[in-house]
Amino acid sequence: MPHTLIRIDDLEDPRIAAYRDIRERDLVGRKGRFVAEGKVVLNVLFSTARFAAESVLLRENRVPGMTHIIDRIPPEVPVYVASGDLMDAIAGFPMHRGVLAIGLRSEEEPAEALLARLPSEALVVALAGISDHDNMGAIFRNAAAFGADAVIMDRTCCDPLYRKAIRVSVGAALKVPFARGGSADAVADTLEAQGFQVLALSPSGKQAIEDVERAPRCALLLGAEGPGLPEALLSRLPSVRIPMRADFDSLNVATAAAIALHRLWRPPTL
Amino acid sequence: MPHTLIRIDDLEDPRIAAYRDIRERDLVGRKGRFVAEGKVVLNVLFSTARFAAESVLLRENRVPGMTHIIDRIPPEVPVYVASGDLMDAIAGFPMHRGVLAIGLRSEEEPAEALLARLPSEALVVALAGISDHDNMGAIFRNAAAFGADAVIMDRTCCDPLYRKAIRVSVGAALKVPFARGGSADAVADTLEAQGFQVLALSPSGKQAIEDVERAPRCALLLGAEGPGLPEALLSRLPSVRIPMRADFDSLNVATAAAIALHRLWRPPTL
Repeated sequence: MPHTLIRIDDLEDPRIAAYRDIRERDLVGRKGRFVAEGKVVLNVLFSTARFAAESVLLRENRVPGMTHIIDRIPPEVPVYVASGDLMDAIAGFPMHRGVLAIGLRSEEEPAEALLARLPSEALVVALAGISDHDNMGAIFRNAAAFGADAVIMDRTCCDPLYRKAIRVSVGAALKVPFARGGSADAVADTLEAQGFQVLALSPSGKQAIEDVERAPRCALLLGAEGPGLPEALLSRLPSVRIPMRADFDSLNVATAAAIALHRLWRPPTL
Repeated sequence: MPHTLIRIDDLEDPRIAAYRDIRERDLVGRKGRFVAEGKVVLNVLFSTARFAAESVLLRENRVPGMTHIIDRIPPEVPVYVASGDLMDAIAGFPMHRGVLAIGLRSEEEPAEALLARLPSEALVVALAGISDHDNMGAIFRNAAAFGADAVIMDRTCCDPLYRKAIRVSVGAALKVPFARGGSADAVADTLEAQGFQVLALSPSGKQAIEDVERAPRCALLLGAEGPGLPEALLSRLPSVRIPMRADFDSLNVATAAAIALHRLWRPPTL
């Protein structure tokens, strides 16, 4: 049955209140909601069961190209359609993409519970102090591309469900399960308690990534660009490095994650 | 001999004209100049001989932390110092970093000439249709990290000396030699004529990157995210892929470049 589209003609329509002034709302929180943006991201939202959606808002000229995604939207989720001008006025800035949805956050699972239900062979990304939403999104994108089973963050990491992080992740933040632990130390402890080898990635790491023998349960621990991982963690965990030019040993943290995950991932055998 | 710092107190001072309204100038061109921004980038500018500088402009509170870079600035290059408010007014927006230089573009070397002077073992990055300055900057950063000897671009690529591209490259755009060819086809022809194996990177590539046997002279050819490389090029060149999850085969082009370069690079033996 085709989804009924609901025409919105009034900026003050209470049904589209959640879309109003999107940028400002990113800063003040959204009470259990998040904003998904763009066709690719909505495709992930509605093709995985991880998060429910509250509503969808489309610019009218985008509707024809969205039919295969609209077909996947559950019937109880309203799909609103507005003109380009009205959509820009609602969002508070030019919404070139014209494809938005409000998602509903689920209760965050404790890190222990998430790790406990992963298979005996699993690859996890662990993050300490990643505060940049672009980096967070890119890390999720790379985690999804290389089959990571989960992302575990320390308490200082930024929100992967921030609008820009979701967009940069091309939807991976809505796909790869994540959980939050306490300090970076506590995250490493939790991983080890769940039988994970925790590899701390650092330019000063002892072993080159190509020489690492990974355990069936393996976690790659990344710190923020610049400060990197705390010295205490680096000294107590096995540490790995990506060999680089001595006079230009500089990689973006998400790029470093991609290279290490590419090395650590074991593609499923057919 | 310590460099003499020249105090600027007047927004209309003609000596700092090149710094005025930096954002707008990026759009209209700068007549053989480029803007370098940030301490790390200036460090690269003044520690490599690739580009000359015309002048430097520092926010007064940044001077103490810049002494080791100031010591490297040639004596004929004036170093201007301004208050924070004046610097913001000059640039036309808040210049949080407070570290700027105007560099001078050199005559662009033809691609053939650049390739001809590379050693018999060389790694080159070839780009077709990279139009995003963030991606361009990130590709240069990764090229520098993995010892690429040069970047060769087709005529549709954007400018690596655009302010944001230089910043994202953390200075690598000022360090790795680059040249521009004609069409993507012409770039591939030029590389092959210079004895380069040209590996076309694509999600549909025939060989996995980890199985590639690289030739001493090796070029990695990358197309734009989305459209990718033209089919005609992919069918006539050896093509390589980065194995990924079948249901999320999506990497940023600069990230894909990093993974492939990490695989293709031969670190110098000590």
